[in-house]
Amino acid sequence: MLIVKKFGGSSVANKERIFNVARRCIEDYKKGHDVVVVLSAMGKTTDELLAKAKEINPNASKREMDMLLTTGEQVSVAMMAMAMQAMDVPAISLNAFQVKMNSSSRHGNARFKRIDSERITNELEARKIVIVTGFQGINKHEDYTTLGRGGSDTTAVALAAALHADKCEIYTDVDGVFTADPRIVPNARKLDEITYDEMLELATSGAKVLHNRSVEMAKKYGVQMVVRSSLNETEGTVVKEVVKMEKMLITGVASDKNTARISVIGVKDKPGTAFKIFHRLAKNNINIDIILQSVGREGTKDISFTVSQDDLQDALRVLEENKESLTIQEIKHNAKVAKVAIVGAGMMSNPGVASQMFEALYNYGININMISTSEIRITVLIDEKDVDRATLAIHEKFALGDV
Amino acid sequence: MLIVKKFGGSSVANKERIFNVARRCIEDYKKGHDVVVVLSAMGKTTDELLAKAKEINPNASKREMDMLLTTGEQVSVAMMAMAMQAMDVPAISLNAFQVKMNSSSRHGNARFKRIDSERITNELEARKIVIVTGFQGINKHEDYTTLGRGGSDTTAVALAAALHADKCEIYTDVDGVFTADPRIVPNARKLDEITYDEMLELATSGAKVLHNRSVEMAKKYGVQMVVRSSLNETEGTVVKEVVKMEKMLITGVASDKNTARISVIGVKDKPGTAFKIFHRLAKNNINIDIILQSVGREGTKDISFTVSQDDLQDALRVLEENKESLTIQEIKHNAKVAKVAIVGAGMMSNPGVASQMFEALYNYGININMISTSEIRITVLIDEKDVDRATLAIHEKFALGDV
Repeated sequence: MLIVKKFGGSSVANKERIFNVARRCIEDYKKGHDVVVVLSAMGKTTDELLAKAKEINPNASKREMDMLLTTGEQVSVAMMAMAMQAMDVPAISLNAFQVKMNSSSRHGNARFKRIDSERITNELEARKIVIVTGFQGINKHEDYTTLGRGGSDTTAVALAAALHADKCEIYTDVDGVFTADPRIVPNARKLDEITYDEMLELATSGAKVLHNRSVEMAKKYGVQMVVRSSLNETEGTVVKEVVKMEKMLITGVASDKNTARISVIGVKDKPGTAFKIFHRLAKNNINIDIILQSVGREGTKDISFTVSQDDLQDALRVLEENKESLTIQEIKHNAKVAKVAIVGAGMMSNPGVASQMFEALYNYGININMISTSEIRITVLIDEKDVDRATLAIHEKFALGDV
Repeated sequence: MLIVKKFGGSSVANKERIFNVARRCIEDYKKGHDVVVVLSAMGKTTDELLAKAKEINPNASKREMDMLLTTGEQVSVAMMAMAMQAMDVPAISLNAFQVKMNSSSRHGNARFKRIDSERITNELEARKIVIVTGFQGINKHEDYTTLGRGGSDTTAVALAAALHADKCEIYTDVDGVFTADPRIVPNARKLDEITYDEMLELATSGAKVLHNRSVEMAKKYGVQMVVRSSLNETEGTVVKEVVKMEKMLITGVASDKNTARISVIGVKDKPGTAFKIFHRLAKNNINIDIILQSVGREGTKDISFTVSQDDLQDALRVLEENKESLTIQEIKHNAKVAKVAIVGAGMMSNPGVASQMFEALYNYGININMISTSEIRITVLIDEKDVDRATLAIHEKFALGDV
């Protein structure tokens, strides 16, 4: 069996943890499996490098930023290979140049284009554990790129796809994917299996366990992902195309406080006004989430939408600067809001799910601001202060804690 | 004019020094020159990485060691590019993969084989300052190598040769090459020019200012080197093939305390015994310097030679282990010795130089242990305690401080 294992920065933050990871990889190696390990930079290395760079030049080019940051993973993989060698297991570290992890050109947010499997395959055939730098690629100019948030997860999935790995294990500090955040819902249950689509909806709804880009790629190439703990031997959650039928309609609840609502009031009610507003925001790299449009007074309309809190000030500035051309009379915003979403493939064939969710919130006196749905997800926007109560209410309503 | 400039680790140890180096490079750039900068790892980075690696595995493979250490220079070059960008000058950093610095396979002590000039030439044509990682290469397996001591100097010379640079400036913390170590000889004089051969002899005799490998390469490819200070604007010393005739016989005095003498006593006086001893030592990577052979008692001979102090214990162990097969009756050693050498192309046609040197030492009551000569160098082995006095005596005898 060929297994790709990914460990994050905190899993390799010091000597003890490095040897802990080495031991877990060697266990599988000694069972006769081929093992490829993907690592992030050790501990806070990336943050430290960013701080140093900022001291020299707060506006350094992203190309040089990537040149700097990619050293972080290279240190990790070399140290890990040394640790495994200290345990008498042949291991070799490889960076993005050595693997030829070809990516798009966009520094700081590149996408993989093609990954060469030759070098890794040769090293595996020589019965070595292969340790690869996560988070980084090489563009067509032969420059380093980085992948942005969740990058190392994506590296692991991309390698698993290129190598036709049997599974791709993503190690985290939790036991797997839960029906809700266990810090909020004490009886939240760990899921044994979840579909790619459900995982994607959970990830985009605030579940931090996997980044949606890695899940998208896993779905596209049929890579079986496993989310599991680096701290214990628990089996974890398998992410795959079809899961065995559980009796549950709903797979889980997720919430996201990093959201803010903006309302533009009194926009002229004629074709193209909404397009112009969102086009202007998109050109400034501001991602829009939920959108709600309502009729205003006297031939105008009001449009509300949510953005991440990181983008709020940018979005307000862009709207203010273009207030006239966009025919906006007034701009309002509220950062004290949050999203709560339920996700489940079962809801497609069960029309009553939404009303059950709203009933749960009503019973707890929680007001709904906005609603957005996909085939397998229902998201509501509520006051930030109500988030934990809402999560508990919904989790209880759908009895997600029961097996 | 195309200028390659090399700065060592202490020259880029912190923000202020990085900007100081950036300014010096930009000065030449703004005069219209093409500027290529070679950097070592910042400050003590390499030592810190070595210490970290030792903690994980004291016997880590050299391949992984090189993978780890090469991150040091990559951080330096990225930071330098950012500093230059902060000063509104276009700059780009390149590592050994990007330049294609092809080297031999030997990790920790590789040699350059072929350097690709295409990427650098393209960036120079786009009027960028190009900043290249020193000390590192890529071998035929596409693995990182490092060059060993003096590596970044060698990188600078190799790039200057590949790019047909007009000169290769090596920046240090001294003003250039001196007739003797100014800390020992207060009236030591900075040389304006020196030949490759003289520089080579001085470097191998203990002058720390340039590593002999870089000088050898500069001689081979006719690269004009300049040794100058990163702290001031002094012109420095030019190293080249032919220097304008000065009236001096002797270019300079150098000394080296990192030496030890070993004597093997009572070796059988038959063909091949000396060969066997030095072959055995060479196989254990022990470099021999001065050798002296003398007739012993009753068909035996005594052989004395010097090794660096770092190799002393290894050499003694090897000799002890092979004492019988090498027909050695007794092994003696003395670590309290030092070499003092005078170097000068002029001595070739002046047979009296050696006797003048010996006279100077005799006048100061300094005993000579061993003597070794090349065409342009005379080295004596003396007691370590006499080194500084010997250096002064010789410097004075040849009036090296006078212009």
